[in-house]
Amino acid sequence: MLITFEGIDGCGKTTQIKLLKEYIESKGLSVVTMREPGGSDFSEQLRNILLSSRHRVGARSELMLFEAARANLVDTVIKPELERGKIVICDRFYDSTTAYQAFGRGLPLDFVQKLNLFATGGLTPNLTIYLSISLDESKRRTSRPEFDRIEKAGDEFFLKVIEGYNYIARQEPNRFVVVDASGSRQETARKVRKVFDKFFEGFPK
Amino acid sequence: MLITFEGIDGCGKTTQIKLLKEYIESKGLSVVTMREPGGSDFSEQLRNILLSSRHRVGARSELMLFEAARANLVDTVIKPELERGKIVICDRFYDSTTAYQAFGRGLPLDFVQKLNLFATGGLTPNLTIYLSISLDESKRRTSRPEFDRIEKAGDEFFLKVIEGYNYIARQEPNRFVVVDASGSRQETARKVRKVFDKFFEGFPK
Repeated sequence: MLITFEGIDGCGKTTQIKLLKEYIESKGLSVVTMREPGGSDFSEQLRNILLSSRHRVGARSELMLFEAARANLVDTVIKPELERGKIVICDRFYDSTTAYQAFGRGLPLDFVQKLNLFATGGLTPNLTIYLSISLDESKRRTSRPEFDRIEKAGDEFFLKVIEGYNYIARQEPNRFVVVDASGSRQETARKVRKVFDKFFEGFPK
Repeated sequence: MLITFEGIDGCGKTTQIKLLKEYIESKGLSVVTMREPGGSDFSEQLRNILLSSRHRVGARSELMLFEAARANLVDTVIKPELERGKIVICDRFYDSTTAYQAFGRGLPLDFVQKLNLFATGGLTPNLTIYLSISLDESKRRTSRPEFDRIEKAGDEFFLKVIEGYNYIARQEPNRFVVVDASGSRQETARKVRKVFDKFFEGFPK
């Protein structure tokens, strides 16, 4: 069972993943968590290159680096863990690429989606929890100085990313569940547990 | 004008590129050469990861890393040099990906070709010189110890790569010119110059 978390900066993915992991483990089930890009030695190296500001990385190159990291993570970590019967929770997966690279950067959606499936070798998440917050809320929660410097173009980019997530929610309402994450972490955690319980009930044992 | 060289190990690309560069410069034209993967700071870093044997890199991940490196090289080096009016000679380009990743590794040809064009942003070489040698000749010329350890599977891989190059030659006979490189370097250099002269004559000034 592969569960992924999605959302813009400040939506609370890291915290909610930790809380959901504890909740699932309290049921006696075994959970591994990982982040994207990264999660394997090779992919962490690509993460460093991707997030390092010393390189000028174009949109096409960025897209393919994310996919290269993902393909490696799937082959060397996610698939083996799933085969061992683990529940895998991943902090971001290919929906991030659809939202950020296709909608945000304007790369062709159809091509990005094909590339997503190619990179995972056809593996799709069983459940994706999208922690939805507004751009204003995101800015309030992420008090890093660079957000002060966000100009019009920056806002436009993140609004397009949110539009991308909403698009996926309309396309795949069963897999991609929108959770309002604007409240407290306890409120959001309750909602996430409810989504998980409902999903888990219907999951073939 | 973008000229690319292709061929399996030992075909003499490095030497022939050097000789052709000198020949073209002797006509008073300005030439820059580069290698793939690599050629930019970012892409050289990817090259190191790609060629490092400490990572287990799957075929899909490898493919996308090559394309990420290529997209960056095109955007940051090749296009600017072409705009400056330089003749760019590149040691390997997307035909290598078609031959090695699609034919060699068995990834879907159609998808690889789409990815090739996406990575270059539609840029195609004006002329590609394929230095053709047999697998036996390649083994004779590359006396590295690892070739002693090449078993059946290794041979099969390189035979598929050669098949891939032959496929491209049939598909695009005008752009992709096969040069028999089994003779001496002087013989091959003469052939390469002849191909270049004929191409250059017909090239719009």
